[in-house]
Amino acid sequence: MNRTDKFRDECGVFGIACHPEAARHTYLGLYALQHRGQESAGIVSTDGSQLHRQRGMGLVADVFDDRRLAELRGESAIGHVRYSTSGDSSINNAQPIVSESWRGPIALAHNGNLLNNERLRRQLEGEGAIFQSTSDTEVVLHLLARCPNKDLDQALREVLLQIQGAYSMLIQTPKQLYAVRDPLGVRPLCLGQLEDAYTVASETCAFDLIGARYLRDVAPGEILKIENGQLESFFLPSAPHPAHCIFEHVYFSRPDSTVFERSVHRSRYLMGRQLAQEAGVPADIVVPVPDSGMTAALGYSDESEIPFKFGLIRNHYVGRTFIEPKQSIRHFGVKIKLNPVKELLKDKKVILIDDSIVRGTTSRKIVELVRWAGATEVHLRISSPPTVSPCYYGIDTPTHRELIGANKTVEEIRTYTGADSLSYLSLEGMQKAVSSKGNFCSACFDEKYPIPISRDSLQKRLFETEEESAKH
Amino acid sequence: MNRTDKFRDECGVFGIACHPEAARHTYLGLYALQHRGQESAGIVSTDGSQLHRQRGMGLVADVFDDRRLAELRGESAIGHVRYSTSGDSSINNAQPIVSESWRGPIALAHNGNLLNNERLRRQLEGEGAIFQSTSDTEVVLHLLARCPNKDLDQALREVLLQIQGAYSMLIQTPKQLYAVRDPLGVRPLCLGQLEDAYTVASETCAFDLIGARYLRDVAPGEILKIENGQLESFFLPSAPHPAHCIFEHVYFSRPDSTVFERSVHRSRYLMGRQLAQEAGVPADIVVPVPDSGMTAALGYSDESEIPFKFGLIRNHYVGRTFIEPKQSIRHFGVKIKLNPVKELLKDKKVILIDDSIVRGTTSRKIVELVRWAGATEVHLRISSPPTVSPCYYGIDTPTHRELIGANKTVEEIRTYTGADSLSYLSLEGMQKAVSSKGNFCSACFDEKYPIPISRDSLQKRLFETEEESAKH
Amino acid sequence: MNRTDKFRDECGVFGIACHPEAARHTYLGLYALQHRGQESAGIVSTDGSQLHRQRGMGLVADVFDDRRLAELRGESAIGHVRYSTSGDSSINNAQPIVSESWRGPIALAHNGNLLNNERLRRQLEGEGAIFQSTSDTEVVLHLLARCPNKDLDQALREVLLQIQGAYSMLIQTPKQLYAVRDPLGVRPLCLGQLEDAYTVASETCAFDLIGARYLRDVAPGEILKIENGQLESFFLPSAPHPAHCIFEHVYFSRPDSTVFERSVHRSRYLMGRQLAQEAGVPADIVVPVPDSGMTAALGYSDESEIPFKFGLIRNHYVGRTFIEPKQSIRHFGVKIKLNPVKELLKDKKVILIDDSIVRGTTSRKIVELVRWAGATEVHLRISSPPTVSPCYYGIDTPTHRELIGANKTVEEIRTYTGADSLSYLSLEGMQKAVSSKGNFCSACFDEKYPIPISRDSLQKRLFETEEESAKH
Amino acid sequence: MNRTDKFRDECGVFGIACHPEAARHTYLGLYALQHRGQESAGIVSTDGSQLHRQRGMGLVADVFDDRRLAELRGESAIGHVRYSTSGDSSINNAQPIVSESWRGPIALAHNGNLLNNERLRRQLEGEGAIFQSTSDTEVVLHLLARCPNKDLDQALREVLLQIQGAYSMLIQTPKQLYAVRDPLGVRPLCLGQLEDAYTVASETCAFDLIGARYLRDVAPGEILKIENGQLESFFLPSAPHPAHCIFEHVYFSRPDSTVFERSVHRSRYLMGRQLAQEAGVPADIVVPVPDSGMTAALGYSDESEIPFKFGLIRNHYVGRTFIEPKQSIRHFGVKIKLNPVKELLKDKKVILIDDSIVRGTTSRKIVELVRWAGATEVHLRISSPPTVSPCYYGIDTPTHRELIGANKTVEEIRTYTGADSLSYLSLEGMQKAVSSKGNFCSACFDEKYPIPISRDSLQKRLFETEEESAKH
Repeated sequence: MNRTDKFRDECGVFGIACHPEAARHTYLGLYALQHRGQESAGIVSTDGSQLHRQRGMGLVADVFDDRRLAELRGESAIGHVRYSTSGDSSINNAQPIVSESWRGPIALAHNGNLLNNERLRRQLEGEGAIFQSTSDTEVVLHLLARCPNKDLDQALREVLLQIQGAYSMLIQTPKQLYAVRDPLGVRPLCLGQLEDAYTVASETCAFDLIGARYLRDVAPGEILKIENGQLESFFLPSAPHPAHCIFEHVYFSRPDSTVFERSVHRSRYLMGRQLAQEAGVPADIVVPVPDSGMTAALGYSDESEIPFKFGLIRNHYVGRTFIEPKQSIRHFGVKIKLNPVKELLKDKKVILIDDSIVRGTTSRKIVELVRWAGATEVHLRISSPPTVSPCYYGIDTPTHRELIGANKTVEEIRTYTGADSLSYLSLEGMQKAVSSKGNFCSACFDEKYPIPISRDSLQKRLFETEEESAKH
Repeated sequence: MNRTDKFRDECGVFGIACHPEAARHTYLGLYALQHRGQESAGIVSTDGSQLHRQRGMGLVADVFDDRRLAELRGESAIGHVRYSTSGDSSINNAQPIVSESWRGPIALAHNGNLLNNERLRRQLEGEGAIFQSTSDTEVVLHLLARCPNKDLDQALREVLLQIQGAYSMLIQTPKQLYAVRDPLGVRPLCLGQLEDAYTVASETCAFDLIGARYLRDVAPGEILKIENGQLESFFLPSAPHPAHCIFEHVYFSRPDSTVFERSVHRSRYLMGRQLAQEAGVPADIVVPVPDSGMTAALGYSDESEIPFKFGLIRNHYVGRTFIEPKQSIRHFGVKIKLNPVKELLKDKKVILIDDSIVRGTTSRKIVELVRWAGATEVHLRISSPPTVSPCYYGIDTPTHRELIGANKTVEEIRTYTGADSLSYLSLEGMQKAVSSKGNFCSACFDEKYPIPISRDSLQKRLFETEEESAKH
Repeated sequence: MNRTDKFRDECGVFGIACHPEAARHTYLGLYALQHRGQESAGIVSTDGSQLHRQRGMGLVADVFDDRRLAELRGESAIGHVRYSTSGDSSINNAQPIVSESWRGPIALAHNGNLLNNERLRRQLEGEGAIFQSTSDTEVVLHLLARCPNKDLDQALREVLLQIQGAYSMLIQTPKQLYAVRDPLGVRPLCLGQLEDAYTVASETCAFDLIGARYLRDVAPGEILKIENGQLESFFLPSAPHPAHCIFEHVYFSRPDSTVFERSVHRSRYLMGRQLAQEAGVPADIVVPVPDSGMTAALGYSDESEIPFKFGLIRNHYVGRTFIEPKQSIRHFGVKIKLNPVKELLKDKKVILIDDSIVRGTTSRKIVELVRWAGATEVHLRISSPPTVSPCYYGIDTPTHRELIGANKTVEEIRTYTGADSLSYLSLEGMQKAVSSKGNFCSACFDEKYPIPISRDSLQKRLFETEEESAKH
Repeated sequence: MNRTDKFRDECGVFGIACHPEAARHTYLGLYALQHRGQESAGIVSTDGSQLHRQRGMGLVADVFDDRRLAELRGESAIGHVRYSTSGDSSINNAQPIVSESWRGPIALAHNGNLLNNERLRRQLEGEGAIFQSTSDTEVVLHLLARCPNKDLDQALREVLLQIQGAYSMLIQTPKQLYAVRDPLGVRPLCLGQLEDAYTVASETCAFDLIGARYLRDVAPGEILKIENGQLESFFLPSAPHPAHCIFEHVYFSRPDSTVFERSVHRSRYLMGRQLAQEAGVPADIVVPVPDSGMTAALGYSDESEIPFKFGLIRNHYVGRTFIEPKQSIRHFGVKIKLNPVKELLKDKKVILIDDSIVRGTTSRKIVELVRWAGATEVHLRISSPPTVSPCYYGIDTPTHRELIGANKTVEEIRTYTGADSLSYLSLEGMQKAVSSKGNFCSACFDEKYPIPISRDSLQKRLFETEEESAKH
């Protein structure tokens, strides 16, 4: 739906080492990860001595063509897809970032967010560093350049000990590919194998496309190095237990992926079943908000034995810009993306399933649309708990002020959306659905932040408006 | 899925008369009809004395921008989306076609196919006519120019009596908008109202987007004229009974549309139910081939009480051109569009539902993919009968030689696709699902052509290869 | 300079028959003729049975790429460059035009203007013809299709007898290439040879680029046919004497071309010398308005022995659209294209040479600019007589009302431009410079139209404004 | 002509402070300086607190549109045009470069070349600096960030004392615009005034376009600061005398510019006269190689009293890429850009004037072309001495090995080009033409480098091939 009314994953990463078609497979891997970031795409390859980079604004399939892929010579490559902001600055922030230092060229592709970025940046600036982007990735490159330890393995470890936050990073040098995951394993990162080559990706759907075999997750705190086709691992000091981002299972990841060693589809389906158990209501049909509510709606329907119906049809031809009529059309914004099937909704009591409510504006429009199509009752069911707090670990969430769940009671939200009833899945229900053994971060639902948030970050998220943050 | 392995609707039309934002609403109407043709789009408007045209190759949202819409002055407009073939000729064939004659300027947007086109064309050429496109639409304009009757209503009637075939046409002159449908009503055409303005469209989903109210279908054989905001109707000699294209309900139309005064969703759902009754098989899950098999699969699941599962995920970011790796990847062609959810398919007996099998190549790949994902049995169920014969009424179908249903038995097709079992919906079952009272054309299933096919057309379809036909 | 303040040639044509790289050489030929038309370009080739067309808006080098040239299969091709007007209609009017009739496919590329076009068109429309462009070229195709004579040579002759006007036409059928020139030979058309292949072009500069040898002009009234590599000629009834467009020598053609069997450079140089004899004035330097006044200025300088100086520098990077500052800059419109060399102009008496004055607006700005740069006197000298009447033979001239020479005396024009003195070359002087033996049309200077002008055309040119004419 | 066979200026800069249309005027200024760099263009503006940047590959008129200019808010701006190399890296090297440090944001636009760049870079890398481009401009930003002096005036002075080389730099901070020129004043930089605003530019032609008044050159070693509309100046330790690049007068600058407080046109004209005195030869005509030889040819003609003729016509429509025929065409490469006027050249003794010979390949082709057009003798005259040594001060010259003047005697070069005679202007003659009082650098002609060349740079220029250097 309206992408700005969903939490947004900020990045997807992919890498492959020692494969004759490294750049092409990275391109395919990024293509499979396109849902994790649609505004810029980039690949850096190595031919053993030099790094080659191609990047651009837009979808993977638009940024790369045969010519650009051909310039990405060599048998090892890393790639990145991301959301970014408009304007000239954006291409500067597009990843992978490449820098030259006394260590030689290094490229970095990052999914996550550093919490002590501002402090490190001020400190580095104090020492005379200059910055050419606003990305926290640049901080890591500065730290690597300033670390005197000549051994890159050691230096990397030292640098990672200085940074705090959630990160899954790929690092490409002329000879090595490193895959790094923070000690809590907040963001996903998987290891696969394609013939003799190792490959890493944010989600396993990337492996499926290229025909690679999923081996295991890169472990929390693991620094994995691939050199000369060999895998080597060393570790950061371990955290007591991981804190995987539960929202990957709620919404971000593709349902056909295995994330945190668990099927995303299964989690979502069970969330739907659990929701039906917790918040059943007599009705005629269960209708998902496509595509985010699909799997949970199926679970809800199976559990409640209320028939599942495609009562809302998603338009697949939505362009980037859309010209609106001058004279307003009722529900235009939502109708350009969704159309109700009146045949199904007319005179029905409808249970409408979505994965989450962020600002509430879109939910309100959908409820209106369903009612306009003839539904007599609209019961909104959300397959996760109210989102009450922003994410600081690499997810683009609105500020506290804009999160409807942070500012209104469930009943107030119901009133706002215009639904006849509204229920969210309970925190316990959600954790049950992912078989949590305390290994998930659900801070956006319960404010229990596994990594302490700096005052800087807090201030930023609490008070800035979306427009302001768009500048960065 | 692979669009070239589906029958393809060749066009969608939209018109609106006497509305201050005629061009913008036509743009929106075409946008809602985008599934009927994605390769060119065009709009002609009238300011009361002159016609203005804008057209281009590509999607509606890409062809039109504010500037182009602003040039489409006036309060009446017609538009067209179509499939077309590559190369320079295509933009010439893009519709609406505009011509100047002693009658003044006339624009025509056509959905359908004229059966005596070749004969009329030869006859017109014999009289010295020149043609600038290969489109049968141009024949209609020639006939209008040669008809001596000064009254356009009469002339149009006379011309339509000369042409044979399936057509839903919109005609725009500086003062009038005509909407015409062949006596059998093969292709759909609906009439709606938006405030004081009348609007016509191939499907009602176009009305939904702009907020127009569906009034009724333009009747088979009806010539509907809108002038000065008034509706007027006259008729061609009536056919004994209509012959609506049943494939609109099987596959072409959007499920949220009302087509031939019947909900498309409902037809498809009932086809699924009927299929389950006719061709049940013990299995663990029912999986649709997205998006074509979605609604029927739901019907099948409901009837069979075998759970419905999203076992195949469609990739929404498929670009126009896609760069393949040099080294072949197993199932690449289908995986770039679909990914199996292994969690769901593994160790399962799967009923795979699709709407039709054309050449069989894609079905074969999907069956392989589902098996590769771990399914122990794959039972392919098709929610329409075998397609045994080409369409001559405006649908892009392969030649007889290429239609697997025309050349192999069901058992041979099963063997080809690699499924454990294969069943099609029966002809009677399909007709029951659309509540047919003999008012549908199902010639592609039963070879009962309601309009006689000329030898020319027959020859063409029987022997030409796809490449050759691509030229026209 | 400001192109809208010059007469504009409307087209250039090029053809080559029986050469293995027909399309590529046509592309190069059009490239050399680019100065004759910069807004659209098109090529039609034949592979012996089918015609292939590629055309587009813009410069030759932008319209064609390797892929498009590769689609222009075959060993014979014709091409066309033209000016055209903005909007969607333009691409329809882009040439060559191709039509299909009982004769089979025919392509036509036309440089010129038919004087009885309107009458023929009305007559054809009366007989039921439809038109899809506003180009007079389409009329010729209609006449060909309606001519019952099966022999194309004969039919072509019959059709040409029906049309009146100035034309140099290339016609491509699957087997033949025809090059046709009106009986007065108004517009140029040259015949050349490249190895065994014959080639035709508006100017010889096209032959120079591809290395072809200039043989002779296609004669006035000649119909030249190339088939199977053989040249054959037949003729229209001859005119008493030709009427070559003298403006080709004044401004349109490239100075390195031979046009009407005479060096363009030589004509222009002699116009300058003649002008100095007729209208000498004491001064310090002779300065051409680049590039139109270059050659004549050199002649003037040589004759007058006043030094030639590049006092105005032309900017070569002028883009299509140019963003102006909001706050007006003095002389901005002209300075964006020309910059005065103050070092040269300061405190000098300047003789400024241009080829013609059309509306006078640009001349006025240039005089101001030269004065602003410090010139103490500015003597404007024009190397042709005052343009007093529009052209009806294929040149884009403003209406009578807009032509300053048609409405003001020389002294009034001088006052308008702000020059200290103004002289034009005399009619006799110009004719002497081109060694005219009565074989030139100079109707734009003397209103002696060699082909009678229809009332239609006259009305049109006399009263319509530029905006109105832009529609056609 | 073939741009790769000329020395190429690498950059042009423009800045304006305290003008309400700062960005638009910078755009116009860059447009006038387009001849100094055609491959990328960029502007940075300041609104008093933030810097805004827009840049892109291509011509100024293509890179900027209304939207992009509107985003360049504020009343002060600097801009840059440059040559650059293909591939992704180029946009990273496009200027102005912007960085963030403890001093806040700083933008820098640089025309020139630092000679101790490599050493400084190694030193900075040793201290932990990371580099994101290969541009020497980035070194300056690093030095500024590392300089502890809080006063930016002082810091800038300290940093400039560390760098060696030829530079004209513009620096934009949120509040100040600095214009800096190296102590020898190698590259040009002019100061102008537009109403109350100060403006700086590489050449005065930029002032002419926007209507600014030229005040004076920024002095060698001057650091000029504009803040709050006030001008302030301070200086680096002075050099004994300046070393202005004489090649600006030979070829780079526009003839309508005043450069180094001297008319470029005048210098070039006098070079031509001097050349005639030194190397006269009996002949029929003097023909310039357009456009580089134009002004000198006029001087030569005036001095020798041999008539000046436009014997070679330059094609103005050369696109970026040009498709060649498969079968080779004689002189194709040069004919696509130049066409000989046979009328003028036939049976003539021709003196051909060009400004310089770099590799000799193009001169050879032009001589052949002129001879092919019928010239009986071709005397090549070059309006500067042989170029015997590369430039290290911001000009793109080939390596020593490729410079024909560095490797062959004049007689050998004559043989290579195929001319009947060849003469260069003497060093003394050239210096006389620019009225040199020892204030010019003519190292490319006499190897007297006014700034010592590091071994690094020397190595690089002496041995690398063009392909290798293209990477930087």
